[in-house]
Amino acid sequence: MRRNIERLAARADRLGAALRPHMKTAKSLDVAALLHHGTPCPVTVSTLAEAEAFADGGYTVITYAGGIDPHKLPRVVALLRRGITLRILLDSTEQAEFVVEASRQAGLPIPAQIEIDCDGHRGGLKPDAPTLVDVGRILHDAGCLDGVLTHAGESYFAYTGEEQRLAAKNERDTAGAAAERLRAAGLPMATVSIGSTPTAHTAEDLTGVTELRAGNYVFFDLVMAGIGVCCIEDIALSVVVTVIGHRPEYGWIVTDGGWMAMSRDRGTALQAQDQGYGLVTDLDGTLIPDLVLTAASQEHGTLTIRDGARLPDLPVGTRLRILPNHACATAAQHHGYHVIDNIRTTNTAPAIQDIWQRVTGW
Amino acid sequence: MRRNIERLAARADRLGAALRPHMKTAKSLDVAALLHHGTPCPVTVSTLAEAEAFADGGYTVITYAGGIDPHKLPRVVALLRRGITLRILLDSTEQAEFVVEASRQAGLPIPAQIEIDCDGHRGGLKPDAPTLVDVGRILHDAGCLDGVLTHAGESYFAYTGEEQRLAAKNERDTAGAAAERLRAAGLPMATVSIGSTPTAHTAEDLTGVTELRAGNYVFFDLVMAGIGVCCIEDIALSVVVTVIGHRPEYGWIVTDGGWMAMSRDRGTALQAQDQGYGLVTDLDGTLIPDLVLTAASQEHGTLTIRDGARLPDLPVGTRLRILPNHACATAAQHHGYHVIDNIRTTNTAPAIQDIWQRVTGW
Repeated sequence: MRRNIERLAARADRLGAALRPHMKTAKSLDVAALLHHGTPCPVTVSTLAEAEAFADGGYTVITYAGGIDPHKLPRVVALLRRGITLRILLDSTEQAEFVVEASRQAGLPIPAQIEIDCDGHRGGLKPDAPTLVDVGRILHDAGCLDGVLTHAGESYFAYTGEEQRLAAKNERDTAGAAAERLRAAGLPMATVSIGSTPTAHTAEDLTGVTELRAGNYVFFDLVMAGIGVCCIEDIALSVVVTVIGHRPEYGWIVTDGGWMAMSRDRGTALQAQDQGYGLVTDLDGTLIPDLVLTAASQEHGTLTIRDGARLPDLPVGTRLRILPNHACATAAQHHGYHVIDNIRTTNTAPAIQDIWQRVTGW
Repeated sequence: MRRNIERLAARADRLGAALRPHMKTAKSLDVAALLHHGTPCPVTVSTLAEAEAFADGGYTVITYAGGIDPHKLPRVVALLRRGITLRILLDSTEQAEFVVEASRQAGLPIPAQIEIDCDGHRGGLKPDAPTLVDVGRILHDAGCLDGVLTHAGESYFAYTGEEQRLAAKNERDTAGAAAERLRAAGLPMATVSIGSTPTAHTAEDLTGVTELRAGNYVFFDLVMAGIGVCCIEDIALSVVVTVIGHRPEYGWIVTDGGWMAMSRDRGTALQAQDQGYGLVTDLDGTLIPDLVLTAASQEHGTLTIRDGARLPDLPVGTRLRILPNHACATAAQHHGYHVIDNIRTTNTAPAIQDIWQRVTGW
């Protein structure tokens, strides 16, 4: 995890963009403390519960990167009143109008970014959308306009480095085009924010971008390894399971870790190599070749071997680790993290050095 | 939920089997209180955390229905010492031997059931397995043998009532055959336990069965509706989401409820009608025809309409409910339940009457 954090921090430095890590994956103040040498840095969050927890932890510059819903504005205002620079996100005149109204009622401007759609992934306005300048002007006139934000969500499906570089260039160009159009209309842009784990690791030039966001990269996972953004050895999150049985007639080893522990995420199903519900390592983190968690019920996992290799001899009680398809989803099935160090550098099972809690709920 | 609970309770009464509800779905003492008129009844659990929470709540007869791992035996013994009748599950001589050893060391017999495989779903011994009687004898000689347990897990893929009835008959017959073989070897069987939500609702004759287990039925879900075990109107669990945007060019309504709120479960994907990540209702529970949660990222959901129907007009801020594919998985994404009553009998949004906590972790 430390290596993953350092890698992207160095990259953002080289590219001249401020890194604003997305806490949606780790949801942990302890992980966040490693991002910037123990001092709070600007962060991105996926829920107001995260925003509130990070504010409580001393983080004062926070982007809440989900389209705003009017019901949530009282909690936004409460955070602003605590002195938190909380930026929210929106993509419609409808939202801009209720944000301005809430700002007026609260007597303070709510800083807002306009979500830009760069790849048809989910929300946002295209840079040539008829309403883009209207949204900008409504916000600007009330002192609420902060900038633009986009997310190349489709880059998770960019299966080669070249496709990822193109996605990164497109993400930058699209955010830049939207910012230019708004500036040309007399609307100043403090922030031009882009990011996703694949594009953050492949972008070659971030001219015009002020901020880079990524979240998954602190842990990485099999989906990211499958598209070459990391190696399997970089994956810093695993779930410990225990062998509870064997079905030699089916070629199964049965464990006590099912989808409750791993999540139902099957993100590698569409990749060149489907990794089932995860790959298996020893307790010390050494990959057991060709052993895959191929089936999961609530509290049971079934391990099988690929390509006719021989099932390893793993007696009942053997502890193993499962590397997840999708770190965000797997981490979310747990209250926190058992922290270990020096994995893969000793021959003994690593000791749990700490327990880090996750922020949960909304 | 009350109707679902009463329906299966009446069915078990008619069939002459003791219902032992599986708490793996609701994981809630408040839900459990409705199962037996407010007094603790025998229950089944999927984790030792559930066993401990239910023991704390006054439940004294508990089956932990996952194959036992030796690391868990100290917690099992601690519950037995508190006076809880906790039955565990196993399917190998290896497990039987360490259970007997733990019983000897603790100075009390650990009651154990032998898991029987009726349909190749995951663990268990087939009734004719060479080791079945050995496992039984090891347990019996130490005073640990309680009986047999099977689960027709494949019945979730029985798409017609006739297939479900056959699965129920097979589940009963297989448990009965295993019990008979053990009895013929001089090993008494106190418990013959079977169950799954589909088979519990379709079994016609439970002769020889002492206990019926089911968990999902308290809430039901779209998977169960898809195979005809319940109607969509019976589904007693939903997730409230809010509209945060529109993408008319794609035919999308965007909400703030993604897979973090729904889980990644796509259990209807293989059914005749794929329900995406869930169906959509008004806040008062009225189904909005043909509107489906077709895509989910972490905190965003995309609603689309089926069959070229017109997208309903749902402004930003509109609250909706999503009916889940899989109640066990969706409930697990939340700390608890906002309890409402009289849904669908009033025209106003139902008030939250209570908040019920879930048992989490392992």
